[in-house]
Amino acid sequence: LKVDGKAYRTIWVADDGASVAIIDQTKLPREFAVASLATLDDAAAAIRDMQVRGAPLIGVTAAYGLCLAVAADPSDANLARASDLLEATRPTAVNLRAALERMRGALERVVPSERAVVAWALAAELADEDVAQNRFIGQHGLSILEGLRKARREDRPIQIMTHCNAGWLATVDVGTALAPVYLAHDAGMSVHVWVSETRPRNQGAFLTAWELAKHGVPHTVIVDSAAGHLMQRGDVDIVIVGADRVTRSGDVANKIGTYLKALAARDCAVPFYVAVPSSTIDWAIDDGREIPIEERDADEVTHIARIRLAPENSGARNIGFDVTPARLITGLITERGICTPSRESLASAFPDR
Amino acid sequence: LKVDGKAYRTIWVADDGASVAIIDQTKLPREFAVASLATLDDAAAAIRDMQVRGAPLIGVTAAYGLCLAVAADPSDANLARASDLLEATRPTAVNLRAALERMRGALERVVPSERAVVAWALAAELADEDVAQNRFIGQHGLSILEGLRKARREDRPIQIMTHCNAGWLATVDVGTALAPVYLAHDAGMSVHVWVSETRPRNQGAFLTAWELAKHGVPHTVIVDSAAGHLMQRGDVDIVIVGADRVTRSGDVANKIGTYLKALAARDCAVPFYVAVPSSTIDWAIDDGREIPIEERDADEVTHIARIRLAPENSGARNIGFDVTPARLITGLITERGICTPSRESLASAFPDR
Repeated sequence: LKVDGKAYRTIWVADDGASVAIIDQTKLPREFAVASLATLDDAAAAIRDMQVRGAPLIGVTAAYGLCLAVAADPSDANLARASDLLEATRPTAVNLRAALERMRGALERVVPSERAVVAWALAAELADEDVAQNRFIGQHGLSILEGLRKARREDRPIQIMTHCNAGWLATVDVGTALAPVYLAHDAGMSVHVWVSETRPRNQGAFLTAWELAKHGVPHTVIVDSAAGHLMQRGDVDIVIVGADRVTRSGDVANKIGTYLKALAARDCAVPFYVAVPSSTIDWAIDDGREIPIEERDADEVTHIARIRLAPENSGARNIGFDVTPARLITGLITERGICTPSRESLASAFPDR
Repeated sequence: LKVDGKAYRTIWVADDGASVAIIDQTKLPREFAVASLATLDDAAAAIRDMQVRGAPLIGVTAAYGLCLAVAADPSDANLARASDLLEATRPTAVNLRAALERMRGALERVVPSERAVVAWALAAELADEDVAQNRFIGQHGLSILEGLRKARREDRPIQIMTHCNAGWLATVDVGTALAPVYLAHDAGMSVHVWVSETRPRNQGAFLTAWELAKHGVPHTVIVDSAAGHLMQRGDVDIVIVGADRVTRSGDVANKIGTYLKALAARDCAVPFYVAVPSSTIDWAIDDGREIPIEERDADEVTHIARIRLAPENSGARNIGFDVTPARLITGLITERGICTPSRESLASAFPDR
């Protein structure tokens, strides 16, 4: 995505070749700031504090975190410690674990003195792979949007609803759920995006609205509670969200509130798609209820910009994700095409997993 | 409800007998402030700016607004003008229109010189009627909670979820959806309330949490998006919400987001009740889609406490209410008992309407 005329990824190796640059997403939309990760602890903190977020980007950031760790100390002990530290930063997105497993597997096969070189090369490969997969997801998703446009008689924009941020900022580049939107917009198709603000951290209002505005895509911010009403009134043609983890049978863990949108989509006969690179599929789990669900500080619910919203003596819960059962999902848009959310369909699309 | 040891209603005639006192709800939870309404315009502004809100309280405030109007000028022309002004303040709650129709009907039957006396008496009657109806709603709702407790083996609290504020602050006293909760708590039943923050104006976090805390009822604030997840995990025994308008066939317009909670309740087999005095039933409408839905300033979505949340160049929509179809509702808790949401059941409970 271009920011003020200059093309950026969300993460890249700095010019010194020894540190990693990220866009600090905690500062958006008010400030576009680049932060530097010089150590393993920097990388772990960036994931934990959500300077980077989004399942695919978390995975790549963890890979670079391992680069920083082995550059400082390539021993077996440090590799194991660094990997454990990074894996513990956030629990729900499986991409984190998948990236660490690939990195660790490759690094354990070479002697410590060669590990830094191998690590930097593989992390770059993971980053490029994410971008390539997202471009495919965009193409497959675009075909769905084109189908909707053809089925439509009137000449109004295709109305897409999304939740949280599964755009450019959630990945290395391009985005997952928003990839088809950007492709459609760039191809001249008239689209409009309903941006659900996504309480409590407001990634929709803060990040999705920002990147859509930067790219010039028409969009409108709504409170999360408005999703059902808009679908009832026929104002939504398709819902596309990302995911933090998909089970092998197609249950989807994603930002809290996704399940409510899926229920409304089903009730209103609106197609509901989940756009995911295969790195987000957890082949070890069948039932979505087995996915660990992150719960964060209650302060994120009770305060905004350090202003307390709820009374002093009211507690709060801050559950980060929920699980949408496969039965409510129309399709999974992957880099290999559109799968129905079932064990058979996923397994046949990824026989090499 | 008692505030710091003193019993309050949310609206009452001031000691001077010529003005009306209200609790200014825009200042809660930070400040408990009483505001004075001395003129018709004060009353209209209090409703429009949501110093008072909640369908039953809006109705009674409008009635008192008409008192202030006819005390100043009891002419036919002023009565009509005042009534029109008050009716235009907010569109969705039918209680407003119902209260104004009753007031106007009574006042038109007497000569102008007697109107002020009749108006003050009838407004007081409407206020007392609201309190009495809510006490009945509380009793009928309590029987549902007792049934849930008996059906349960373990000794954990009954988990009640609500949305927005349908408590003491939404009525003259007692509340609608929260009336059974207060009665249950006072009777020694162990209850816990999930308080949905209710974006964009946060009436859950600001008002419901505040009044539950004042009364000592255990509760937890959640983001609106978390409702489905908690029901999936078995953490909700019953949902009880209020309503702004119920059609004669049982469709319910209530604060935006109610429909999503009803969908999740149905999907998770959680009973979903709507607590309403019969003044909230619109006997002229069958289909919920005919109910006018208020849309408010986009600023309420894009800003909080004057801090802008969404980017400058992102628009927003601020739809105030949504409609939950009768098919998703377990029962309507009215002052005459629990009705199934159907034309027949409602008509037979209120043959005298």
